[in-house]
Amino acid sequence: MKFEITILGSSSATPTFNRHPTAQILNIRDRYFLVDCGEGTQMQLIRYRIRYHRISHIFISHLHGDHYLGLMGLLSTMHLQGRTTELHIFGHPELMDTIEMQLRLSQTVLRYSLVFHPLSHYSGDIIHEDEDVIVRSVVLYHRIPCNGFIFQEKRMPRKILMDRVHQNQIPVSALSEIKKGKDYISASGKVVPNEDLTLESPEARTYAFLSDTRYEEMLVEEIRDVDLVYHEATFMHDLVDRAKATYHSTALQAARIAKLANAKKLIIGHFSARYRELEPLLDEAKAEFENTELALEGRMFEIPVRKVGTSVQ
Amino acid sequence: MKFEITILGSSSATPTFNRHPTAQILNIRDRYFLVDCGEGTQMQLIRYRIRYHRISHIFISHLHGDHYLGLMGLLSTMHLQGRTTELHIFGHPELMDTIEMQLRLSQTVLRYSLVFHPLSHYSGDIIHEDEDVIVRSVVLYHRIPCNGFIFQEKRMPRKILMDRVHQNQIPVSALSEIKKGKDYISASGKVVPNEDLTLESPEARTYAFLSDTRYEEMLVEEIRDVDLVYHEATFMHDLVDRAKATYHSTALQAARIAKLANAKKLIIGHFSARYRELEPLLDEAKAEFENTELALEGRMFEIPVRKVGTSVQ
Repeated sequence: MKFEITILGSSSATPTFNRHPTAQILNIRDRYFLVDCGEGTQMQLIRYRIRYHRISHIFISHLHGDHYLGLMGLLSTMHLQGRTTELHIFGHPELMDTIEMQLRLSQTVLRYSLVFHPLSHYSGDIIHEDEDVIVRSVVLYHRIPCNGFIFQEKRMPRKILMDRVHQNQIPVSALSEIKKGKDYISASGKVVPNEDLTLESPEARTYAFLSDTRYEEMLVEEIRDVDLVYHEATFMHDLVDRAKATYHSTALQAARIAKLANAKKLIIGHFSARYRELEPLLDEAKAEFENTELALEGRMFEIPVRKVGTSVQ
Repeated sequence: MKFEITILGSSSATPTFNRHPTAQILNIRDRYFLVDCGEGTQMQLIRYRIRYHRISHIFISHLHGDHYLGLMGLLSTMHLQGRTTELHIFGHPELMDTIEMQLRLSQTVLRYSLVFHPLSHYSGDIIHEDEDVIVRSVVLYHRIPCNGFIFQEKRMPRKILMDRVHQNQIPVSALSEIKKGKDYISASGKVVPNEDLTLESPEARTYAFLSDTRYEEMLVEEIRDVDLVYHEATFMHDLVDRAKATYHSTALQAARIAKLANAKKLIIGHFSARYRELEPLLDEAKAEFENTELALEGRMFEIPVRKVGTSVQ
């Protein structure tokens, strides 16, 4: 029941000696999602020994180079290494134009199907749904069209207590309804309440990836009560004017959004190349929202399974 | 009087844990030329502390991703870091289409002028000339249009022996003709032979960059007597059929071209990801052409200044 986010890149527009542009890989119940794909992402995937052939879906927040210039190289490597399984890409419509042009220039015909899903400019759209995960898109406030993504696992069915089932001599045929929360009524009319037969499943976990955006309280409701939120923090708050002018946020602003949204935890990233040391950004955010961590490359964040009614910080 | 080649990438189409796709930086008499620009080149430039803002000309051999996908990121970083000096790019015409499209998508208007020079499909064209260097293009034999580049420094004027000039009471106004090799004739008709007044300048040095190509002896005359040649060596010779089918070369073939051309030294690179250890490729090449070295990343190769009539191995 994994729900893990691994940071592959933490830099903003220009990379530094030890910071790559934005990319993250999510493993949700063994489904692999890549979120943004800055230059060098395929090398970072190799470096951190991530099985990138298992990536089934790639989400690109926007078309600034530091968020997508690693995509063509990754697509090409997957092709050269013999991938045949379908790959889904979510991005703004023009992304597919650049992919097609570059495939044409290299005279490459991919061995696998590439299914492109253009992002819309409406928040809340469900852009992907499978047995385990629902992904919603959220519109951000940046210089060019830019989307964030909210990954929510689907809640598992209630857990059957088999000893109670045996005690009550309940037939197997009744179990699927019981899993859904129904009481059991025997042929003689005896009612066994569902709570005597099942345990509630853990709460569904949610991760919000908020790529480049200026400070915008409209985002708070979109991510209310989220388990983990990544919010960009390009600058320290002394540069709030510069943040505003470039449609970016400060560490303090990222923390404020997390606090207002009642998020359980915050990751900040997309650090300007001007900051050699990142501790001051962390300190600034922590002063507003204690449970903050830095998006350090190679770092894996796990959202723990959480039983109903418990609160994990 | 530098003539240095630094290897930034040595891998073929798919990168490995410690090998990046093709890129090299040349410093010829303090002029900086970038040759190919695979994904991650800007990070490699940072890693090896190369002053990439001094790059004035970028040469892209062909439009397979492993030779140009780092270009957009580098152009963007130069822009964001405030470059205003003109940048020249040499490549196949469609390269400019991708650059323009990607600038448009990110709504970027570069602060500096980007001068694009489309490569032709004829060998021997002089594509660049300045006070110090002449660059010729050479057509290679690859799956898509692909060019190599030959960098030749211009020979310096003859060196004046000032003590002899004084002895012969030669006026300053006569020096520029003497530098060109002319004898001095005084007002009274006395002739001082040029060889009494000057020393011959060192021989002009030449570097040939032969990017992706199958084995082709037509290339030999193009690079005859070159000081240093880089020739791709994607495979070992046991895979010569695969090399031929994919329009690549083996280490042995690269060495044979260097030998036939009477090159002074050979660098092999563009190694297939299948080779963890590169020594076997080096051994294979050395058996045919002893003065061979591996294009190891971060390695700098210098072509020494060579006096006339001497031979430097």
